[in-house]
Amino acid sequence: MFHHPKVLTDAVRSVSVKEWKISSDDVVGSEGGLKWSVAKRVLAGGRQEGVEIIEIDNGVMKFTVVPTRGFNVWRANVENVRFGWDSPVAEIVHPQFVNLAERGGLGWLNGFGEWMSRCGLESLGPPCKDGNLTYTLHGRINYIPASYVEVRIEGTPVSRIVLRGVVEESLMFGPQLQLTTEISTEIGSPALTFDDVVTNLSDLPQEMESLYHANFGPPVLGPGAHFVAPVKRVAPRDSRAAEGGMTAWEIYSGPHGPGYTEQVYLMELYADQDDVTKALLKSADGSMGALVSFNVRQLPFMTLWKNEAASKSGYVTGMEPGTSFPLPKPVERAAGRIVMLGGGESHKAKVTFKALRSTEEVEAVTESIKELQVADPEVQTSPLEEC
Amino acid sequence: MFHHPKVLTDAVRSVSVKEWKISSDDVVGSEGGLKWSVAKRVLAGGRQEGVEIIEIDNGVMKFTVVPTRGFNVWRANVENVRFGWDSPVAEIVHPQFVNLAERGGLGWLNGFGEWMSRCGLESLGPPCKDGNLTYTLHGRINYIPASYVEVRIEGTPVSRIVLRGVVEESLMFGPQLQLTTEISTEIGSPALTFDDVVTNLSDLPQEMESLYHANFGPPVLGPGAHFVAPVKRVAPRDSRAAEGGMTAWEIYSGPHGPGYTEQVYLMELYADQDDVTKALLKSADGSMGALVSFNVRQLPFMTLWKNEAASKSGYVTGMEPGTSFPLPKPVERAAGRIVMLGGGESHKAKVTFKALRSTEEVEAVTESIKELQVADPEVQTSPLEEC
Amino acid sequence: MFHHPKVLTDAVRSVSVKEWKISSDDVVGSEGGLKWSVAKRVLAGGRQEGVEIIEIDNGVMKFTVVPTRGFNVWRANVENVRFGWDSPVAEIVHPQFVNLAERGGLGWLNGFGEWMSRCGLESLGPPCKDGNLTYTLHGRINYIPASYVEVRIEGTPVSRIVLRGVVEESLMFGPQLQLTTEISTEIGSPALTFDDVVTNLSDLPQEMESLYHANFGPPVLGPGAHFVAPVKRVAPRDSRAAEGGMTAWEIYSGPHGPGYTEQVYLMELYADQDDVTKALLKSADGSMGALVSFNVRQLPFMTLWKNEAASKSGYVTGMEPGTSFPLPKPVERAAGRIVMLGGGESHKAKVTFKALRSTEEVEAVTESIKELQVADPEVQTSPLEEC
Repeated sequence: MFHHPKVLTDAVRSVSVKEWKISSDDVVGSEGGLKWSVAKRVLAGGRQEGVEIIEIDNGVMKFTVVPTRGFNVWRANVENVRFGWDSPVAEIVHPQFVNLAERGGLGWLNGFGEWMSRCGLESLGPPCKDGNLTYTLHGRINYIPASYVEVRIEGTPVSRIVLRGVVEESLMFGPQLQLTTEISTEIGSPALTFDDVVTNLSDLPQEMESLYHANFGPPVLGPGAHFVAPVKRVAPRDSRAAEGGMTAWEIYSGPHGPGYTEQVYLMELYADQDDVTKALLKSADGSMGALVSFNVRQLPFMTLWKNEAASKSGYVTGMEPGTSFPLPKPVERAAGRIVMLGGGESHKAKVTFKALRSTEEVEAVTESIKELQVADPEVQTSPLEEC
Repeated sequence: MFHHPKVLTDAVRSVSVKEWKISSDDVVGSEGGLKWSVAKRVLAGGRQEGVEIIEIDNGVMKFTVVPTRGFNVWRANVENVRFGWDSPVAEIVHPQFVNLAERGGLGWLNGFGEWMSRCGLESLGPPCKDGNLTYTLHGRINYIPASYVEVRIEGTPVSRIVLRGVVEESLMFGPQLQLTTEISTEIGSPALTFDDVVTNLSDLPQEMESLYHANFGPPVLGPGAHFVAPVKRVAPRDSRAAEGGMTAWEIYSGPHGPGYTEQVYLMELYADQDDVTKALLKSADGSMGALVSFNVRQLPFMTLWKNEAASKSGYVTGMEPGTSFPLPKPVERAAGRIVMLGGGESHKAKVTFKALRSTEEVEAVTESIKELQVADPEVQTSPLEEC
Repeated sequence: MFHHPKVLTDAVRSVSVKEWKISSDDVVGSEGGLKWSVAKRVLAGGRQEGVEIIEIDNGVMKFTVVPTRGFNVWRANVENVRFGWDSPVAEIVHPQFVNLAERGGLGWLNGFGEWMSRCGLESLGPPCKDGNLTYTLHGRINYIPASYVEVRIEGTPVSRIVLRGVVEESLMFGPQLQLTTEISTEIGSPALTFDDVVTNLSDLPQEMESLYHANFGPPVLGPGAHFVAPVKRVAPRDSRAAEGGMTAWEIYSGPHGPGYTEQVYLMELYADQDDVTKALLKSADGSMGALVSFNVRQLPFMTLWKNEAASKSGYVTGMEPGTSFPLPKPVERAAGRIVMLGGGESHKAKVTFKALRSTEEVEAVTESIKELQVADPEVQTSPLEEC
């Protein structure tokens, strides 16, 4: 019976279950296996008042999904391998306390503390003008509460936990885009997968942008950590990123002190015969790592965000596969990096993140990435675009 | 006892009844009559989380009042005659998720899915500058939650349902305007009436603007539908509306495909000896219609908004009586179309909407409108104002 | 046991007690003394839906603390001596209904009805540009809900009530400032004290501004009321404040009618050997007053805001000790009036407000202020800064 979806939220029927839990203890036949659980609750206090979260434990990986914040994932970990970072924003800030247009369109940063935020869907990148329109940083989807949430427990014995969420980015005279996401994990696996579908609900063509802003701090990040990927071509975003002549763009040296500013690298990756590629953030001692894999036909562009600021001031790096680069939308449009969806059409993307917990695992993955590197990377030393 | 008002919300006493219902079954003496009911509840899920609604059924007409959204009316219907439309915004969006200043002052559109929204009260029309002030689209009243809500069941046997709401649009160094609205309907009637009073709570003079943005989609709207009114003078708002030389401005031809943009017509109407006028949206086959009637001394200006976009992209028309046209406030001020209220003074408006359900009714109303047409309409072919 | 702190809110543990009360009746040994109480509840209705307040009665003084609004104090009174005013904003507006960026950065005024609001902490003063940054009026702290709230009842028998609050003004690429405030009052005292600590949570230096915007209306304010302080130097903010040649800047003549605009005076005060100074708002007949005392090393700058508008239109005066004047932050920076906190450093401020209830008290305080006036005030007649 647990294979039937449990609906936690359904705006159409005005359903919202605030507290709910299921665990291996509730399922006959799970006695011998790993202990797993899925629990929903509502946070209280400060700027997180009213935020709904779902905490998943598959027996090995624990992670927190936030329906109130566009079905993003606040944090995940497999033992000491952490997906997440030490943001100045410690609370999961509720959208009611965030004004995206604030600070010149940088309001998105008011709640930026999560491991994985989606950017988009109408636009992403810095605040900018686009004809008569004004976009705010990284779009709106990360601050829209999910209209539909369900949990599925699959397999006999239970083998997979699936969370399904629907988030509506729609308004009059604006985007009519619907995100349907499934975040799934296998029992006992150190990985989770996003299966996302963005649908144009209109009967007219609409543009769409989507980027997976996955952010990592210590212990995977640290001085000597490396970004490893089968780079086809890479360019610095701006003159700041171009400093050092692209000789160490994939190596981490921070955290740094006052005066440090972020560096961003824009790239395309080689992939295997199924168009699947992968990228790795490898700890300095090579004993742990964070691996992301995705399909380059779905997400052709990869951004590396290095923000090696002081430890308490937002020390973090982002591995960000996307339909486009996080440059102003007019720049992306001119470069042909915007998805156009016809009325009723959809865009799909599958992204998997895996925690690596041993030198052996890290080395094996590093080797497999090398195999994808069928030619030398084309390294551009001048900025791709000045924003 | 049911004649005493039931207070559902009173901010002064911090009262808020979240769930409540009364129906003909609760009232002795209502056995033989029509079944009616009034029910309050709170919505959950997505962007409608926390929205309070009151659903009224007078035995013939059903409608939904939204105290959380300036006491607007989300939808109404008499059988298949619908007051409302298929907005890209399906949820009744809570003000906590709306930032009016967003998208260059167009944030109002984030929650625009209702049948009848009030525009105003400090300003209405497109975002604009007015000296040092910046106004956002259509003002603030449609996103302010009501401070007071009561329900009255009147008559023996029950003959009328009345909802009273008070909405405060007041801030320091800004407007101090209070809307007191009564939305009433007679048992068994296919109509509802707004009796609105806007009071200047200050002891200094203040400007006020108010417009009833009533929106209709199918089945009343469709190719071949007509707008019928006793037009004294009419002008296109802009060059877009002037296309076609004003030869078919009152006829609907859509929905249209990509590239279509809205057309707006600004008019004054003839009225009867009591200053009451009426306007009709008539379905293509003449078998149904939506009738609005109001007093032209209270609401001298009528706007017709034609947005014959594709079916899923906001296909709708608005009949909008107001104290002014929805042009930038400085334009309205220069044209003398702004109400000035002295300290403590009030402005009253009564507006009735009725569903017409047969060819006979539609024809009778069409005839009665013709009788008001005491002279040929003055049709201006050049735009009244370029915004 | 009542000496242990009662935690009402703790975001870290997701704790939030919505209804709670303690009073002298609950404490053994309090039988013979004054009746006191502390009660927390949640407001409902209108724009105050969801606002959490704590009402304190120390037996003589009653006041209302608002955790949801940056732990400000909505009102206080000792019998008929009122700390507060008749704002156009009657409800305690929840931050969910306020957009600080609205009206050209004046959104702060949407909820401005309190007796004592803190301005800051990143910035205060009018909306302005500061390099690439855009600040809104008076900063953000007054609209951030407290992440931690506790109540302490101290002494045997009970002698003091203390409310402790923590408010986080932190975001990515922005301020990382934490306010820890203790608002305390002695049983039977006509006074309350703020003990505030602002801590730089970052490991990099950060600027900080803080100002106590304490606002008074009738009955202390009225025609003939006086501001009394040991003025070292005073200047009008602008040409409006300079009208009248600074001959009556400390005397009140309003309320005034249409066309009146506010007058602001910026000053430094003499203090005693412990750097403590005081300022008094004295009623016209000298029978009551509001006294503020503070340390001029902590808060070197004093602002007097006279807004002698019509009675129902925001008739109010503010006595505002601060780390700076409420001028644009770039102006304050250029003048050296901004606090710079190193990583982990804190700024402390202690401010006490006392209600004076008799001619004798008022005269005694007036005398003690005169004693601090060791030299004639330096009165500048030309504006200090044009904003």
